[in-house]
Amino acid sequence: MPSSFDFAPLFPAGLPAPSARWTGLAKYSFVGGNNDSEQVPLDGLIEAANQALQREGRSLATYGLAHGPQGYLPLREFLVTKLKRDAGISCSVDDLMIVSGSLQALDLVNNTLLARGDTVIVEQETYQGSLQRLTRLGINTIGIPLDDDGMRMDVLASTLADLKSRGIRPKYIYTIPTVQNPTGSIMPESRRAELLRLSADYGVPIFEDDCYADLVWSGQRPPAIYAMSQNGGVIHIGSFSKSIAPALRVGFIVAPWDVMSRMLALKTDAGSGALEQMVLATYCRPHFASHVPALTMALRAKLDTLMEALNEQFGTAAEFEEPKGGIFLWVKLPDQVDTLKLYQAALAAGVSINPGPEWSTNKGHSGSRLRLCFASPSHQQIREGVAVLADVCRKEFGVPTRSGNMEKARA
Amino acid sequence: MPSSFDFAPLFPAGLPAPSARWTGLAKYSFVGGNNDSEQVPLDGLIEAANQALQREGRSLATYGLAHGPQGYLPLREFLVTKLKRDAGISCSVDDLMIVSGSLQALDLVNNTLLARGDTVIVEQETYQGSLQRLTRLGINTIGIPLDDDGMRMDVLASTLADLKSRGIRPKYIYTIPTVQNPTGSIMPESRRAELLRLSADYGVPIFEDDCYADLVWSGQRPPAIYAMSQNGGVIHIGSFSKSIAPALRVGFIVAPWDVMSRMLALKTDAGSGALEQMVLATYCRPHFASHVPALTMALRAKLDTLMEALNEQFGTAAEFEEPKGGIFLWVKLPDQVDTLKLYQAALAAGVSINPGPEWSTNKGHSGSRLRLCFASPSHQQIREGVAVLADVCRKEFGVPTRSGNMEKARA
Repeated sequence: MPSSFDFAPLFPAGLPAPSARWTGLAKYSFVGGNNDSEQVPLDGLIEAANQALQREGRSLATYGLAHGPQGYLPLREFLVTKLKRDAGISCSVDDLMIVSGSLQALDLVNNTLLARGDTVIVEQETYQGSLQRLTRLGINTIGIPLDDDGMRMDVLASTLADLKSRGIRPKYIYTIPTVQNPTGSIMPESRRAELLRLSADYGVPIFEDDCYADLVWSGQRPPAIYAMSQNGGVIHIGSFSKSIAPALRVGFIVAPWDVMSRMLALKTDAGSGALEQMVLATYCRPHFASHVPALTMALRAKLDTLMEALNEQFGTAAEFEEPKGGIFLWVKLPDQVDTLKLYQAALAAGVSINPGPEWSTNKGHSGSRLRLCFASPSHQQIREGVAVLADVCRKEFGVPTRSGNMEKARA
Repeated sequence: MPSSFDFAPLFPAGLPAPSARWTGLAKYSFVGGNNDSEQVPLDGLIEAANQALQREGRSLATYGLAHGPQGYLPLREFLVTKLKRDAGISCSVDDLMIVSGSLQALDLVNNTLLARGDTVIVEQETYQGSLQRLTRLGINTIGIPLDDDGMRMDVLASTLADLKSRGIRPKYIYTIPTVQNPTGSIMPESRRAELLRLSADYGVPIFEDDCYADLVWSGQRPPAIYAMSQNGGVIHIGSFSKSIAPALRVGFIVAPWDVMSRMLALKTDAGSGALEQMVLATYCRPHFASHVPALTMALRAKLDTLMEALNEQFGTAAEFEEPKGGIFLWVKLPDQVDTLKLYQAALAAGVSINPGPEWSTNKGHSGSRLRLCFASPSHQQIREGVAVLADVCRKEFGVPTRSGNMEKARA
C-alpha cells in the first residue's frame, strides 16, 4: 500500500523522536537486563505451564482470571511469603499489585505522584529507564552521589534542607538500594535507617526499586527499606525479570492502600498477562528458593570472566569495584575516553555497551564510565567482546596503551 | 505496618478517583469482554506451551525474545497470513506491532496523535474504554449516530464540513466497523468506501478497531477499511482476547511506518509478554481457522438463549436488533427506565449490566439502553440472570408490566 497520507501534521508537540527500525542485537551484547539463557529453568517452567493450564486454564476466558485488578492471587500469595523471607516485608495480598514488569511499576508510581515541573531525588548513577521517564515527564531530577554503600546521606540531608529552604518538596527519593544499578553496591541497614529518618523528617516518600535484589552473591541482603519503615512512606517494587526471565514481563508493587488505590485507577490495561502469572506462581512456590542460588552462582562466574577479561585487555586502564550481585559491572576508563563516542565505535565493531552519561545525572562524572552487562553473553563471548572493545578503545582514544591479549594470552 | 505517612498532598491535580477494593464478579455477570470458558482451546494451548517452551524457551532470557520491539516474529507472521485471508489486508511483519491487548493499542495511538483540547470523531455508541480514555486525555469527542449499517455517513460528512468551517481538523475517526460495540452491526463495503472518501477529503485518518471482527456468525466479513485504503491513512488494531482468551493480553497494531515508528518510541515497556506470544503463535498457526467457527457457533447459541430469555421476561419492553456477531446485545428498554439506576439496583441483586450512558456520547439517546454480554455466563445463568434483571426492573420502574416467567414458563 502506498502510504501517501501525511500523519506528520497530526503529531502533538513533545513527541519523542521516531524509533529506528530494529536491526537485531550486537554480536557481543553487554547491554540490557538480559539474563543467562542456560539458567532459564526450562523443565520447571514447562511443568508449571502444564500444571497451571490443566488446573485452571479455562479461567483464561475471564479478564484477570477473575482475581481482580491486583493480579493472580497465588502469585501474590507466593510474593507475600517470599518478601517476608527474603526482605523482611510484612504485607498481605491486598498490599500487592502484579504489573507488566517493573517498568509498568515505574510508570504507575510516576503517574500517581508526578506533574510536570515537580522535583524528585535519585541516585546520581541510576537506571537509564528511570531517568528517561523523568525527562519525558518534565521532572527536575536531582542526583545524589554514591559511595561504596550507596546513596550518600550527608549529601541527601543537605539537598533536602536546601530544597526545603527554597519551598520545594520533592515527590520522592528513588533508590535501588539492593544491588544498585549500575554500581552494584548494597546499602547497609544503618544507612537505610538514616534514609528513613530523612524521609520522615522532610515528608518525602521513598521509592524503593528492588528489581535486582534476588541476585546477591552472598545470599544475604539487608531488610527492605519498606520493611524498616515506621510510617508507611515507602513504595516498593520488584520483578521476576532478573530471577526467572525478563521476556515474561512480570513485576510487582507493594504500597499503602492510599497509593495503591490511585495506581489501580491508572492501570487501565485490564490486567497483566495471566498465563505468565499462572506459570510463575506454579513454578516459584516449590522452586524459587533453590533456583536463585544456582542462578547467582552462574552469574558470579560470568562476572569473574568479565573482570579477568578487563584486567587482561585493559590492565590498569579499567577501574571498577566488584559488585555485590546483579548482572552488570560499572567501569571507569581513563578520563580521555568519551564513552558516548566509544559506544558508537564499539557498536560498529559489533560490541554494544551502555555509555555512562545515559546512566547518570552527572555527565561530567560519568563521561568516561560505562556499564557492562555480563549475564547474557557466554564466557567466550565475554572474553572476545572485551578484546574487541579494547581494540576499539585503543584505536579511538589511545588506551589501553598495550595490546593486553597479545602479551598476556601468550604468556 | 501502620501507614501514617500522608501521600495525599503529593498527588497531582487531575488524578482519577481512587479505585475501590475488588469485591469479585457479580453472580450473574453480563459485563466485560469475558469469553466462554468452555471454548478456551485448552488442549491446544497446553500442547502449544509445551512445544514453544521446548523449542525456544531459553530465549525467554532475552527481552522480547530478541525479536525486537515489534514482537515475536512467528506471531507477526501468523497475523500477516490471517489478516490477508480474513480481512484482505496486505501487510508485512514490519507493519505489525504486538501489544499488551488492544487497550495498549488505544493508548499508543492516542498518545501518538492526541493533545489536550484536540477533537476526535467516534461512533455515538462505542466502547466505554475508548470514551474513558478520551475523557481523561481532555479530548473533545464527537459522536456520530449509527444505523443498522454502522456510522452514518451523511452525519459524518456534515460534521466534518462543520468542523472544517470552524478551523478544526479532527485527529482521527474512530470506528468499530466489524461487529460494532455495542450495537453489533457490520459496516458494509460500500459504506467503508464512503468513509475512506471522507477521510481523504478532509485529511482525517481512520482508526479502525477490529477487535471483535473474528466473531461473525456468517463467517463472512467485508474487507478491513485498512485493506481498502488508497492512501495509507488508516491505523488498524485487533486482538486475540475475543478469539482465544482475554486474560492473555495480546493484541496488535497495523500501521504505516510514520505512525509505527512514533508508537514504538512510546512503547517503553520492554515488550509485551513473550510466553503468551509464543503460545499463541504456536497454537494459532495450525488451529485458529478451525477454532473460530466452533467458538462463534457456541456464542451464537448463547445469544439465542439471551434473546429468548429477554422475550420471555421482558416481552415487548425489551427491543433489540440481532447482532451480526460478537459477545454483546444492545437493548432498548422503555423510556422511563434509567439504566444507570437499573445498574445499581441490579448489582445489589447479583446482576451486573453495562448501563447505556457509559457506552455513548449521547446520554439522552442511551439513557434507557443497556449492553448485555452473553459469552461468559452459562445458558442457565443467562436465563436466571435475565429473570432477576426483569424482577429488579419491574420493582424499580414498573416494566416489564407482567411477570413473563410466570405466565410464559407455565404456558
